[in-house]
Amino acid sequence: MNTNDRALSIRTFVRKLQAMTDELLTSAVKDAAGTTVHADGRRLRGDASRRVILAAAGDLASVEGLDQVSIGRIAQAAGLSKSNVATLFGSKERLQLATVEAARERFIETVIEPARAHPRGLARTLALLDRWIGYSRDRVFAGGCFFAAAAADFDAKPGEVRDAVAAMLREWGRYLAATLQHAHDLGELPELDDAKQAAFEFSALLELANRDSLLTGRNSSYRRARAGIASRLRAAGADAAAIDAFGAVSDG
Amino acid sequence: MNTNDRALSIRTFVRKLQAMTDELLTSAVKDAAGTTVHADGRRLRGDASRRVILAAAGDLASVEGLDQVSIGRIAQAAGLSKSNVATLFGSKERLQLATVEAARERFIETVIEPARAHPRGLARTLALLDRWIGYSRDRVFAGGCFFAAAAADFDAKPGEVRDAVAAMLREWGRYLAATLQHAHDLGELPELDDAKQAAFEFSALLELANRDSLLTGRNSSYRRARAGIASRLRAAGADAAAIDAFGAVSDG
Repeated sequence: MNTNDRALSIRTFVRKLQAMTDELLTSAVKDAAGTTVHADGRRLRGDASRRVILAAAGDLASVEGLDQVSIGRIAQAAGLSKSNVATLFGSKERLQLATVEAARERFIETVIEPARAHPRGLARTLALLDRWIGYSRDRVFAGGCFFAAAAADFDAKPGEVRDAVAAMLREWGRYLAATLQHAHDLGELPELDDAKQAAFEFSALLELANRDSLLTGRNSSYRRARAGIASRLRAAGADAAAIDAFGAVSDG
Repeated sequence: MNTNDRALSIRTFVRKLQAMTDELLTSAVKDAAGTTVHADGRRLRGDASRRVILAAAGDLASVEGLDQVSIGRIAQAAGLSKSNVATLFGSKERLQLATVEAARERFIETVIEPARAHPRGLARTLALLDRWIGYSRDRVFAGGCFFAAAAADFDAKPGEVRDAVAAMLREWGRYLAATLQHAHDLGELPELDDAKQAAFEFSALLELANRDSLLTGRNSSYRRARAGIASRLRAAGADAAAIDAFGAVSDG
């Protein structure tokens, strides 16, 4: 696994930034050439800029920490003027809050939505856990799980940003617990006695796997997380074949 | 739990700094007054400065991130001149590496040594886990577990500092696994099939509890970590009374 290498991370980051800048420029050029007529062209360009800025901010936050996301730093990274970024976001704190919200949307698209394509119950639970591992392993954010990084950065700093990060993590914990509870209610996890406890344990395993993978450049911790989850679900009475399949996935 | 409150964290931090500065001044005054004669007085004063600086650096790193530990920032925090700090540590990276090493020593004093007072096997394993929870809950470092914070800060930044943090976490994981293995070998965890896997799972639970406690200002996650560990140890065949006692401890 070389994606942990700083040079590669920066390269990935720059590549994404390039792609988004291209998108932004194309849209601006289209506007300028009058090939696209918008009811509110200014608003649309603003949205494109926001997207570019927030994607850059999400990657930067996952690598360097959300605290490093400032108007000046992001303007420089996105090749925009400081006043441009300031106009769109107002303050460092507003920019950080918008970064958290954009990361939440990216998480939902990457992890939650694909899992919802699976039937409620054990199948959806396993899809959810599997997608979470993919989200970390595939570096959807250049520095691994955005929320793990943001939480570590802000956990000892009370304020609106910490509250937003905490709210997102609570939301995820609740969703995972509810999904486990559904599986129990459908009779697919008959021995599950505490869905919230299981959700806490699964999140703990996933997050340590995420960190170990980043720290060591190896993916063997995802196997440990899968093994821990599989053994818990087996003890809760889950279908052996489904759990074996989940536990046997290789994360490369 | 109010220790999460920023003002309180800073107060704790300043109080510790004050105590250490007093210690440093006392030692300097003793030297100046000639009441204490040292073979190498300069070296001794350097050691006292180092202690003050590294304690300040450990707290700052746990709250703001190890990346914020720089010669200038620490000189300011410790009320010393930049050149003084630079003379002792040389570079930002050397200072960060010394901070990791000092934090490792503090962890050993707080968690490992007290557990070693208990007999090898299950008793020592439970003491170790219990001390870890105390180390996080009592904010031995102002911003919770130093290594969790440092790992989150450096996991995506290859280099000597990341390697030092990773080495310390590996060392802890190995020690916990060896302790579990001893308990197994003594017949106290007869069903334990994979000590390394159990050590991974326990670390995951402890670290998520640490983060949740910091993030929410509540200690209920320590109860979840205890419950998860207790259920795993019970499944491994541990003595029920010992596990019940461990699981029943209230973390306030």
